[in-house]
Amino acid sequence: MNREACAELDRQDPLAPWRDRFEVPEGVVYLDGNSLGALPKATSTQLARVLRDEWGTGLIRSWDAAHWIDAPQRVGGKIARLIGAEADEVVAADSTSVNLFKLLAAALRLRPERPVILTEATNFPTDRYIAEGLVDLLGGTHELRLVDRDDLTQALDDGTAVLALTHVDYASAAVHDMPALTEAAHRCGALALWDLSHSAGAVPVDLNGSQADLAVGCGYKYLNGGPGAPAYLYVARRWQDALRSPLSGWMGHADPFAFEARYRPAPGISRWLAGTPSILAMAALEVGVDIWLQVDQQAARHKSQALGDLFIQLLDSLIGLDLEIVSPRQGDRRGSHVSVRHPQASSVMETLNREGVIGDFRPPDVMRFGFAALYTRYVDIWDAASRLAQILHRRTEAIRTRAVS
Amino acid sequence: MNREACAELDRQDPLAPWRDRFEVPEGVVYLDGNSLGALPKATSTQLARVLRDEWGTGLIRSWDAAHWIDAPQRVGGKIARLIGAEADEVVAADSTSVNLFKLLAAALRLRPERPVILTEATNFPTDRYIAEGLVDLLGGTHELRLVDRDDLTQALDDGTAVLALTHVDYASAAVHDMPALTEAAHRCGALALWDLSHSAGAVPVDLNGSQADLAVGCGYKYLNGGPGAPAYLYVARRWQDALRSPLSGWMGHADPFAFEARYRPAPGISRWLAGTPSILAMAALEVGVDIWLQVDQQAARHKSQALGDLFIQLLDSLIGLDLEIVSPRQGDRRGSHVSVRHPQASSVMETLNREGVIGDFRPPDVMRFGFAALYTRYVDIWDAASRLAQILHRRTEAIRTRAVS
Repeated sequence: MNREACAELDRQDPLAPWRDRFEVPEGVVYLDGNSLGALPKATSTQLARVLRDEWGTGLIRSWDAAHWIDAPQRVGGKIARLIGAEADEVVAADSTSVNLFKLLAAALRLRPERPVILTEATNFPTDRYIAEGLVDLLGGTHELRLVDRDDLTQALDDGTAVLALTHVDYASAAVHDMPALTEAAHRCGALALWDLSHSAGAVPVDLNGSQADLAVGCGYKYLNGGPGAPAYLYVARRWQDALRSPLSGWMGHADPFAFEARYRPAPGISRWLAGTPSILAMAALEVGVDIWLQVDQQAARHKSQALGDLFIQLLDSLIGLDLEIVSPRQGDRRGSHVSVRHPQASSVMETLNREGVIGDFRPPDVMRFGFAALYTRYVDIWDAASRLAQILHRRTEAIRTRAVS
Repeated sequence: MNREACAELDRQDPLAPWRDRFEVPEGVVYLDGNSLGALPKATSTQLARVLRDEWGTGLIRSWDAAHWIDAPQRVGGKIARLIGAEADEVVAADSTSVNLFKLLAAALRLRPERPVILTEATNFPTDRYIAEGLVDLLGGTHELRLVDRDDLTQALDDGTAVLALTHVDYASAAVHDMPALTEAAHRCGALALWDLSHSAGAVPVDLNGSQADLAVGCGYKYLNGGPGAPAYLYVARRWQDALRSPLSGWMGHADPFAFEARYRPAPGISRWLAGTPSILAMAALEVGVDIWLQVDQQAARHKSQALGDLFIQLLDSLIGLDLEIVSPRQGDRRGSHVSVRHPQASSVMETLNREGVIGDFRPPDVMRFGFAALYTRYVDIWDAASRLAQILHRRTEAIRTRAVS
């Protein structure tokens, strides 16, 4: 493998033209789309239009005339197509954290005789913290049980109300077997809730095919919705009447503008709205999602896997330089990023960033490199791996020199 | 009074030049800034810059380099100056509904021996619905008590955990006596929580001077933050260590990027953050707030009161046409909108809207007209009242004609 072979892969890549639809800064190898996706060029045009025509000219009338009022359901319905759900099962709203709170609280109320939220000890912090806060609020009647990845199925029992997992691990990129774990949860009468933050736009997700009950996910990673984009929330149709949001804000009311005395949850997915959504944030998210709806999902998965495989292959030549690959080597068990461990991960990543390769550092010793099928090129992988190799060789050389002198 | 006299008032208005800083569509008399404030011209420029430079070029690095990470505290600190709070007592985050949930839940936990949330029966729906949802989630141990406006002080007792009120009533624009009601709450050991959604940018608010404990408010009305702008939340310094958010998301953690096993609330106001905030929405809100920080607040209050007085004076000539003024006549007891009741309020407002006067309708029979000191002119008041008079006269005429024929 060499750089020219990578350039040839780019020339043959059917997704290569998509890169032109994004702003990718000159001189930067951006491998952090798993934290913040790149800016679609169309977003600036669209936001300028929303500002000028919809807010500026339409003003309050735009809630109807420009369909602001339906934006959470409309954008949610589009995201549904990327995660194997029906349009009326997904709504865009709030943040992943807030949506998790809503669904976990609802699941506990549905299963009053079951006190346990079961999750993975290394689940993404906010997933654990939000569950911890909910259990705390409920005053000692419930429990958050944290177990190792391999012990999840065994830990499920008739005290489990909900199994809450992140589909693609934020640290290692390891992919959970969604159908199998959902089935295991169902066997013991628990609900299965999936956090898709590192999945949508990265790996195929089939919520309905997996019989998943509940899900949440964020809009700012692979979906390219912008920093802090609205999140989304999925409730399978079969649960929509039975579950109620504890955050019963006016936008989730059956008739928000009737100003009724009592809260009456909207039918269907709309009851999961709480307050007024940011229309600017929603408009930006919709641009990112609209792009994804035009993309061949299988081709995207194929490419992100190939990019990861290539990166791992190139890094294999660096073994012996204290580098350890944390992510699964088997492509179909890995999300769209590759994590590596190094004793000086923090300072190595700082050097990489300074030299134009943007990945991120996760304490204590992990570097993450994310591959966005729509704008990451094979030559980017080559350049990132080469830069990393140079930095590690320089360090080893410096240590050797010090040891000798 | 005539239109020319109104034009003269505009010429003498020290705030008149601010109108140029907003997009106000041609041919429209916009009297709904109390629902959605107008677009500041600077917002489009600022958002274009944030998109291009911060998201597009800076990408993930902008969390530090462009100070995205501090935006909630920075914008909150600016809003603090408009509501009589210290900079470290306010944070911009989530929606008003979600922030209400956080604070009400925290207040109940601080006062475990007190089961009651006390509020006004006609409080804004989401304020009641959110409290209802919280009480429901807590499973029957608590109570939401709704009483009439005049019975609030009497209803306070040693079972009251928190008195939760909206400072300026969304329907009538009546202003509560914040210092007196806060003191009454404190006398019986309850906390006082104020919703400032119709106050900030409309009437003077002095949270610290009133000894208020907690507050929330929205960014999209008089603050001109855009449709669904981030809301804000205030916790008096003396409560900041004692209160905890039930929505314990990662952004409220003492060290969000340390990925610790357990939730550890951040010191101060930051613990009230939950998930990742929308940076685009936050940037738009900051433009609106920055404008307000340059405005003479007393002059703004003086003008909004004068606009309301003028509107009421002009409407008085329409008495006998089934029109009833719902808002307080005394300017200092009224917020920055005037509400009138009419049996055909809905269709009258529709006609007004069609003829370019934008107010809004609140069921069952109220029309609201909001006055934004920064861009509403005295001639707008004249034009709106004239148009309303014409419509009502036409209707009365039509009824008489039908009766005669």
